[in-house]
Amino acid sequence: MKIPELNAAPVLSGAVNGVAVDELSKTVNAIRATPAIAKFKFRIRNQWVEASRNKSTADTFYGAGEEHFRLQPFVLEADEPAILLGKDTSANPVEHLLHALASCLTTSMVYHAAARGIQIDEVESTLEGDIDLRGFLDLDKNVRAGYQGIRVNFKLKADVPDETLKEISQLGPAYSPVFDSLSNGVPISVTAERL
Amino acid sequence: MKIPELNAAPVLSGAVNGVAVDELSKTVNAIRATPAIAKFKFRIRNQWVEASRNKSTADTFYGAGEEHFRLQPFVLEADEPAILLGKDTSANPVEHLLHALASCLTTSMVYHAAARGIQIDEVESTLEGDIDLRGFLDLDKNVRAGYQGIRVNFKLKADVPDETLKEISQLGPAYSPVFDSLSNGVPISVTAERL
Repeated sequence: MKIPELNAAPVLSGAVNGVAVDELSKTVNAIRATPAIAKFKFRIRNQWVEASRNKSTADTFYGAGEEHFRLQPFVLEADEPAILLGKDTSANPVEHLLHALASCLTTSMVYHAAARGIQIDEVESTLEGDIDLRGFLDLDKNVRAGYQGIRVNFKLKADVPDETLKEISQLGPAYSPVFDSLSNGVPISVTAERL
Repeated sequence: MKIPELNAAPVLSGAVNGVAVDELSKTVNAIRATPAIAKFKFRIRNQWVEASRNKSTADTFYGAGEEHFRLQPFVLEADEPAILLGKDTSANPVEHLLHALASCLTTSMVYHAAARGIQIDEVESTLEGDIDLRGFLDLDKNVRAGYQGIRVNFKLKADVPDETLKEISQLGPAYSPVFDSLSNGVPISVTAERL
């Protein structure tokens, strides 16, 4: 079975994989009619605590033509383990990056499978990435500061043939905003001023 | 004042910006002597909960030639707001990506300033990125799924001249592993198997 393109999928009712596919269909149709409502702006504010500790707050975003306020401000922390001179009070920035990637791949897969009427029972993934600290420490100009590569392995439980299972696993890489951002890069501007 | 290169910086003792710069100097010297210990592997495991909810655990990593175990497993959650068909129980994947970027830029700046003996008093940042949902929803092949651009603004408090303040603000983009990963892209392999 070849899973259908999203645009060719039937309009579904109720929930698949816990996703309200009727609402998803309405969203798709609303954006088709008024493409400008597809423009979103996501934001965080970060504050340095000390040394390797800092925290971000996510509480507002823009989308569908208006400002949105989260039910509560979400506070995300960062620290480093002792070997990287931190206090080990929370995950570090490059682990948060892996979480962003894993969570986006999973949600993208689950939503796109739901839109195609495919039920998924369980999803697990493990991610591992390689960093050579000589990049961060400026010890070798030929070594990049960032990840040299990231490996993602999914384990999926779904009552579908092998071929469909493989197609499901490719929905994340095909549509995930974080996968695209991290695979292909994003223009980032950095400005600074005195506090 | 031109801030010195890390390699040319004097060996410092004690803590600057809360960072144990004597330990940082020892790390730099140890890696110079044995470059292989600079190789790190960071990891997470992710588990789907339902619909837009999933969670990652970070508890082990490899570095300096051995496995490391965190003081406690760090659990990171993800969800989507109601307009994106979630329950709004936590930050979403693309907000986690902004947190990874902000936290890494800040820590990189603070560490590299410390290594140069420059005290920073306060650091705040705001980040905003643009996403057009037509990419994720497969409604326009010319619209990417990921961020089209991300803007970072830092506010810094430090008793230094304007020129030095500007140089400090450029340490993050110069050395941050997440900034490099997200600016320049990372090769990501995705495999899948049946659970």
